[in-house]
Amino acid sequence: MRIEEDLIGKMAIDQDVYYGIQTVRACQNFSISGRTIELYPHLIKAMAYIKKAAAMSNYSVGALDEKKKDAICQATDDVLNGQMKDQFPVDIYQAGGGVSINMNINEVIANRANELLTGHKGYDCIHPNEHVNMSQSTNDVLPSAMKMACYFYIEDLLISLNNIERTLANKTDEFSNVVKIARTCLQDAVPITLGQQFSGYHSFIRRQIEDIKKLQKECLSIVIGATAVGTGIGAAAGYIDKMYEYLPVVSSLSIYKEENFFDGLQNADIYIKFSAYLKGLSSGLSKLSNDLRLLSSGPRAGFAEIILPAVQPGSSIMPGKINPCMPEMVMQVCFDVYGNDQAITFAVDRGELDLNIWEPIILKNLFESFSLLTNAITLFTEKCLDGIKANKTICMNNAEKSLSLSVIISSLFGYKVANEVVVKAFEKSLTIKEVAIDMGLLNEEDASKFLNPENLTDFMKMQDLLNSKGNHF
Amino acid sequence: MRIEEDLIGKMAIDQDVYYGIQTVRACQNFSISGRTIELYPHLIKAMAYIKKAAAMSNYSVGALDEKKKDAICQATDDVLNGQMKDQFPVDIYQAGGGVSINMNINEVIANRANELLTGHKGYDCIHPNEHVNMSQSTNDVLPSAMKMACYFYIEDLLISLNNIERTLANKTDEFSNVVKIARTCLQDAVPITLGQQFSGYHSFIRRQIEDIKKLQKECLSIVIGATAVGTGIGAAAGYIDKMYEYLPVVSSLSIYKEENFFDGLQNADIYIKFSAYLKGLSSGLSKLSNDLRLLSSGPRAGFAEIILPAVQPGSSIMPGKINPCMPEMVMQVCFDVYGNDQAITFAVDRGELDLNIWEPIILKNLFESFSLLTNAITLFTEKCLDGIKANKTICMNNAEKSLSLSVIISSLFGYKVANEVVVKAFEKSLTIKEVAIDMGLLNEEDASKFLNPENLTDFMKMQDLLNSKGNHF
Amino acid sequence: MRIEEDLIGKMAIDQDVYYGIQTVRACQNFSISGRTIELYPHLIKAMAYIKKAAAMSNYSVGALDEKKKDAICQATDDVLNGQMKDQFPVDIYQAGGGVSINMNINEVIANRANELLTGHKGYDCIHPNEHVNMSQSTNDVLPSAMKMACYFYIEDLLISLNNIERTLANKTDEFSNVVKIARTCLQDAVPITLGQQFSGYHSFIRRQIEDIKKLQKECLSIVIGATAVGTGIGAAAGYIDKMYEYLPVVSSLSIYKEENFFDGLQNADIYIKFSAYLKGLSSGLSKLSNDLRLLSSGPRAGFAEIILPAVQPGSSIMPGKINPCMPEMVMQVCFDVYGNDQAITFAVDRGELDLNIWEPIILKNLFESFSLLTNAITLFTEKCLDGIKANKTICMNNAEKSLSLSVIISSLFGYKVANEVVVKAFEKSLTIKEVAIDMGLLNEEDASKFLNPENLTDFMKMQDLLNSKGNHF
Amino acid sequence: MRIEEDLIGKMAIDQDVYYGIQTVRACQNFSISGRTIELYPHLIKAMAYIKKAAAMSNYSVGALDEKKKDAICQATDDVLNGQMKDQFPVDIYQAGGGVSINMNINEVIANRANELLTGHKGYDCIHPNEHVNMSQSTNDVLPSAMKMACYFYIEDLLISLNNIERTLANKTDEFSNVVKIARTCLQDAVPITLGQQFSGYHSFIRRQIEDIKKLQKECLSIVIGATAVGTGIGAAAGYIDKMYEYLPVVSSLSIYKEENFFDGLQNADIYIKFSAYLKGLSSGLSKLSNDLRLLSSGPRAGFAEIILPAVQPGSSIMPGKINPCMPEMVMQVCFDVYGNDQAITFAVDRGELDLNIWEPIILKNLFESFSLLTNAITLFTEKCLDGIKANKTICMNNAEKSLSLSVIISSLFGYKVANEVVVKAFEKSLTIKEVAIDMGLLNEEDASKFLNPENLTDFMKMQDLLNSKGNHF
Repeated sequence: MRIEEDLIGKMAIDQDVYYGIQTVRACQNFSISGRTIELYPHLIKAMAYIKKAAAMSNYSVGALDEKKKDAICQATDDVLNGQMKDQFPVDIYQAGGGVSINMNINEVIANRANELLTGHKGYDCIHPNEHVNMSQSTNDVLPSAMKMACYFYIEDLLISLNNIERTLANKTDEFSNVVKIARTCLQDAVPITLGQQFSGYHSFIRRQIEDIKKLQKECLSIVIGATAVGTGIGAAAGYIDKMYEYLPVVSSLSIYKEENFFDGLQNADIYIKFSAYLKGLSSGLSKLSNDLRLLSSGPRAGFAEIILPAVQPGSSIMPGKINPCMPEMVMQVCFDVYGNDQAITFAVDRGELDLNIWEPIILKNLFESFSLLTNAITLFTEKCLDGIKANKTICMNNAEKSLSLSVIISSLFGYKVANEVVVKAFEKSLTIKEVAIDMGLLNEEDASKFLNPENLTDFMKMQDLLNSKGNHF
Repeated sequence: MRIEEDLIGKMAIDQDVYYGIQTVRACQNFSISGRTIELYPHLIKAMAYIKKAAAMSNYSVGALDEKKKDAICQATDDVLNGQMKDQFPVDIYQAGGGVSINMNINEVIANRANELLTGHKGYDCIHPNEHVNMSQSTNDVLPSAMKMACYFYIEDLLISLNNIERTLANKTDEFSNVVKIARTCLQDAVPITLGQQFSGYHSFIRRQIEDIKKLQKECLSIVIGATAVGTGIGAAAGYIDKMYEYLPVVSSLSIYKEENFFDGLQNADIYIKFSAYLKGLSSGLSKLSNDLRLLSSGPRAGFAEIILPAVQPGSSIMPGKINPCMPEMVMQVCFDVYGNDQAITFAVDRGELDLNIWEPIILKNLFESFSLLTNAITLFTEKCLDGIKANKTICMNNAEKSLSLSVIISSLFGYKVANEVVVKAFEKSLTIKEVAIDMGLLNEEDASKFLNPENLTDFMKMQDLLNSKGNHF
Repeated sequence: MRIEEDLIGKMAIDQDVYYGIQTVRACQNFSISGRTIELYPHLIKAMAYIKKAAAMSNYSVGALDEKKKDAICQATDDVLNGQMKDQFPVDIYQAGGGVSINMNINEVIANRANELLTGHKGYDCIHPNEHVNMSQSTNDVLPSAMKMACYFYIEDLLISLNNIERTLANKTDEFSNVVKIARTCLQDAVPITLGQQFSGYHSFIRRQIEDIKKLQKECLSIVIGATAVGTGIGAAAGYIDKMYEYLPVVSSLSIYKEENFFDGLQNADIYIKFSAYLKGLSSGLSKLSNDLRLLSSGPRAGFAEIILPAVQPGSSIMPGKINPCMPEMVMQVCFDVYGNDQAITFAVDRGELDLNIWEPIILKNLFESFSLLTNAITLFTEKCLDGIKANKTICMNNAEKSLSLSVIISSLFGYKVANEVVVKAFEKSLTIKEVAIDMGLLNEEDASKFLNPENLTDFMKMQDLLNSKGNHF
Repeated sequence: MRIEEDLIGKMAIDQDVYYGIQTVRACQNFSISGRTIELYPHLIKAMAYIKKAAAMSNYSVGALDEKKKDAICQATDDVLNGQMKDQFPVDIYQAGGGVSINMNINEVIANRANELLTGHKGYDCIHPNEHVNMSQSTNDVLPSAMKMACYFYIEDLLISLNNIERTLANKTDEFSNVVKIARTCLQDAVPITLGQQFSGYHSFIRRQIEDIKKLQKECLSIVIGATAVGTGIGAAAGYIDKMYEYLPVVSSLSIYKEENFFDGLQNADIYIKFSAYLKGLSSGLSKLSNDLRLLSSGPRAGFAEIILPAVQPGSSIMPGKINPCMPEMVMQVCFDVYGNDQAITFAVDRGELDLNIWEPIILKNLFESFSLLTNAITLFTEKCLDGIKANKTICMNNAEKSLSLSVIISSLFGYKVANEVVVKAFEKSLTIKEVAIDMGLLNEEDASKFLNPENLTDFMKMQDLLNSKGNHF
């Protein structure tokens, strides 16, 4: 054991661990959930980039000597290489501001650097606050690292979004000739192709990708250099300019300086925006999932228009039951994304005075939403969407018998006549086509054109048909 | 009374009213809240633009005759002029899809047009469905009108945002020399100017304006022409192209066609985005309001750094008590915006199959958020922000006695020494400056430079001071 | 015009109105939504009861003279009789604490009392603060009135809940012989009767009624007498005891004193509870509504097991389309109840120090939830639930062909055999019964007993059948 | 490796593991979060109780032989003893209904039982579905186990609530003589004692304990025996009655049968209630925490009325800064409880037809809220509340100088005079007492009685003082 001391007092620390007294205090104060910052590797990576660039900047302006700089840089590399990944035991539920996150990382880097320089750990030659944290405050480091981490999370998410986008494009193509009934208010409406329906899903994902890419760019504007409250107090002279030179190189991100540091520290509204985009994405995934559940409902007493791949038995008591497992998993992930958004909203709203101190709970919820969605989309695509099959016969049958084909009668003969046709069709259990012929409104040939579901899903064909009638209804 | 009939049966309608049987049915089915669509004039305006452009389009492709077209156009103008504003009694809580909204407007226009043509009302020469609604479905009209209405709501909001932006810019200027203490975690931190703090508020608003302007552009892409499910079924040949020609002219909005109609009808995620931007705006307004409450707390037993204009007596029992009324009102508006976002999230998530039918509740919540914020910001600016005064003496006193000036001792003499200084200052109720001189760390002159709160709020001055020491701490 | 003056200054007030300068200031400060406190008559009633009982109490302890007491009592009666109902123009979005609500009522009562005593209005013989508000603070009056108003809102709600409970009991009975398929995960499961399904809905409502009745009792514990912060400062000697004697008489509510006034003023968690009960109620109404939508989906390409009464045409473009309008309305109301709960949560969470000042926004959201639900349930019951019909043939067909009847094969012959049966039934499009006979597992007679859907919905019959086999599977 | 087979196909399973093919499939389908059901030991315990009682019940009615019964009972004991605790790898994000949870447990018990009977694992002598799951469905097992688990979670929570209750009772006592200023709207109000303020916190917790104890009782009504959809299909004859005999014995919980099984399966509104109670609890904890932050703000430029124990350094850059860490942690936990409530609301609302299948996400969020709060309250009590100290001098000073003592002047001399006094006090920076004497309203002696803050916090003393004046103001 080694003895370390801080403002509160002395404490014996296990010789093996790279973290120090402040980390241990945090572990004791906050043994809440067992969810430690180790679970957010993108955040630790971003913090390490900052620590490394800060050492280089402080050195280059004469505030840190070369030996120390080298040791710190080596230590951050060890963090980046994953060698220290079990050294971040601080619970994510912790004090406001995230000082314990910053100090955990400062201590690990300082101790690793000390080890490199002197062979032993402890608040010593390299001091976590004085050297590793030089020119920095948790208040500018953590928000900056959070945005960088968001950048990385978005990279992961985009991979899964591109996968689902491709699959939905393929399915749109594959189903382009499957004519079926559309439903509004869960009631039979007019014909559509399954491909058209899937083109809607595809278009939705495509829009999300575009939006999220734009959002990713907003991650690049950071507040490093603001230090404690935005004035840059405590930063070495010349340090800030150097940071915006070195950090982009170290992190390979085109990072630049936020326009107003005070705003950057006071407000966390950007995380409402990030979360909202994930919520928007979730709303469409949840809808798509529920649509798949509806369309595959049955197999005998439901819509049964599509068949989802069977991935596991669906019941412990009903042999042979197969459930829409993957969509159900996705929906539950979406519910949690909505829940996370709620927590984030509270945390952002509660910002006060010169700093929004609720970053720990914001990052916990936001990063969780990111990784849940990334993983869920990947598995959903692979184990469900890729293998969906259509039941063409059922689809076409449903389209043909829809009473809403009355819209065509209305177009051709007016709303009142259409009402008569539909009432008759309903009462006599006939199709609109049958009634239209029966009532002498259309002859067999015209009825077969104007009331052919396939034609009615094709805008150009419909227009040609209408043109053939001279737009006279 | 006149007799009208629909699919359900006959009904006597008051001769005076311009709406008809379907509106009356909706009033009977949905007497829920007394909040009628009359409360959303931007929506009615947008619907009227669509009806007018549709009549022009249908006429121009030969589907509607000139007389009918003229009458419909005249009737929509009457709606636009506000002549019909008491003719929209449908409760906003209603059936999914908003058919009753569309039919209320179709009926009012049809009856006004009938009156112009024939002198009497009723499902007659101009039929609400056949002529006013020609080539349209509620399913493409309402989503299109909602986006157009959002455009108008954003116009209103931007006026109030520009006002508050100007006021905050002025206050930033006015308070640029008021040195005070910054607080993080509600604990005394380092000096800042009140102007710097307000520059954060100002920057926040400026960013919202930029974001919301971008969002406004997204309102211009609409689904008119999709009709019932995206296929354009029931639209007259040539109608769609004409709509995108006439509607921009009629509405003076640079409207264009949404890329994928199926997506446009299936998904309402854009309203999550809209609501999220309002939520983001609210988060900063709520924070600003709460900051003002904190900073003006007192007058004697609080922070008392600023004084808000007194707008009304604050207590029914304590004479002379003045409360931060306007910030409190703003915060409550923000809570409701968060609540509205919740309702919208449910409604968007619940979209299913070929149409998100929950537009009525979405528009109710979204438009309410828009107008609450617009009105609240206007009054907040005028009756509170404009008149804020600073208490310079208290501000400077607080800054001077802060123990967090230790950051400077730490920069100059290391973390450990700084800890000693701060402990001594705390225990002996001295300032950091007094202890630093007392301990012989700094002479009077240097202490007066390095620990002068004013210098410590000015990044350039700090850098110069540090440079004078050669960045050697 | 009459001139009135307060701490802020002088103002000319319209001679006709009963409210005074503080109300007018509030109207100017808070022209936010047009939603005035007039919309919450239960609140005004409760406030008037308090004012009346307070006058009686103050008189009885010698703090108010008889003439003034009589005039105030007469004035409150006029408020209670609805004579003053257009005199409450304060917007519900207002300053924290709701002082403007209290002062609006104080002023109206004072002016009416002055009119009775002197023939003219104005801060005069009867002073709103000194006499009408004697021994009271907004801080104890408003929370007390809110709870009393909740009591009244619950009375209204219970009427509509009792209605729906009766209807669901009737339907449970009516549908007790309609055998149909149950669905879990939207996939065909085992048989159930429509009556059993409705008994679940009925039981749900019955539970809500019990819970809400319990909740109603919690409305009776109030904080009147706490005055500004819980210490009773400013109350006349003896007043408090008198209040708990007179207020129950005046209001006919068995009101009693809250155990800890400080808690009662500090915390508003009870409104989270109230809102949660409404949210719980909404969750089941929303589910029931959506179930009705699913079960009535079709009419031809959906489940089509039940038929909802047609209340209005469902489409502006598709003649003859009928939608599940009433369930859709209910669901949207539920979404808003969830949204209101969100706003309430923010407001309760934000309570601080000696008073939760966010009552205005809490009451707005809570009372709105109450009245939306009350009205929605009434109309839902009358225009939808009452008239639901079952499609017996479709129901029985679905039950017979379900593959999940495999559960019986599994019970009798083991899980593995059941798997074989179900695979064969699926592949050959046969029923479980057909395969069981075909494979020689059951003879025709046994199959007709063990696989008869009707038997399988009746627990006693199933047990008898199993007993006949000696529980040996 | 051993080979196992299910409806989907064959799979090689690691010989070492006790779980089987369905668990492995679930792991492959749902590698979403790494949060496995192992994290919810209360749930596993409850499931094991059910499995044991079911084996006993099935045996006692002759449906399971003795050897199998004994082996299953032994295996469940091994689960209860914690021997199998690493055998539950299924991710909590999974298919609806939680079949994978049930099958994971069925497989572990079956394999352990097989091992005991035959020495090897595999779907064999004891079959997970046929024997361990005999007479059960996931649909009745999981909801029953969830309620039982809630019971256990509440037990844990009550321990921490009793702790905090005791501490707050002690502090109420300790601070009963600390006279301070109360604040409403963050503005100086009338005197109160710190003990009175803490009595409010104490009373709040006491109420929560009572409410949560009542709630705990609702956990005892369960749906075991409902099997798949509420009809009890697949249950052995006589099994259900036996279950309600054995399960209370096995689990030591006074479990009884829910009144309506269909309701019990259809609806999950009880979890909205549970979550709401945790939300209500959180609202007060969040408020208390924030109050502590406000009251301890400073140390020099804030309210500084109390001092919180220092638990760790508060800043990486400002030596000596101490933050209210524990309250900040608590607030963030509360934000997450609100977020969890949101996810639960979505999941409950989404229930459909004969089963609410969203239990996995409900239990994840609910159990997480339980354990977060339990742990947070324990640490908050121990590391913060226990050690709070009051700053008596500051407290009394604030009380004496408050302008709101005007309420006494108003009581004695009317509202108008009080207004004059307060204006004068404000303008001349005097106390109310000084002005009252100065204006000749009160002599020194009376002023010292009537305007003594200590007297003004004591209702009895105030009443006596008023009585001495004959209630004549």
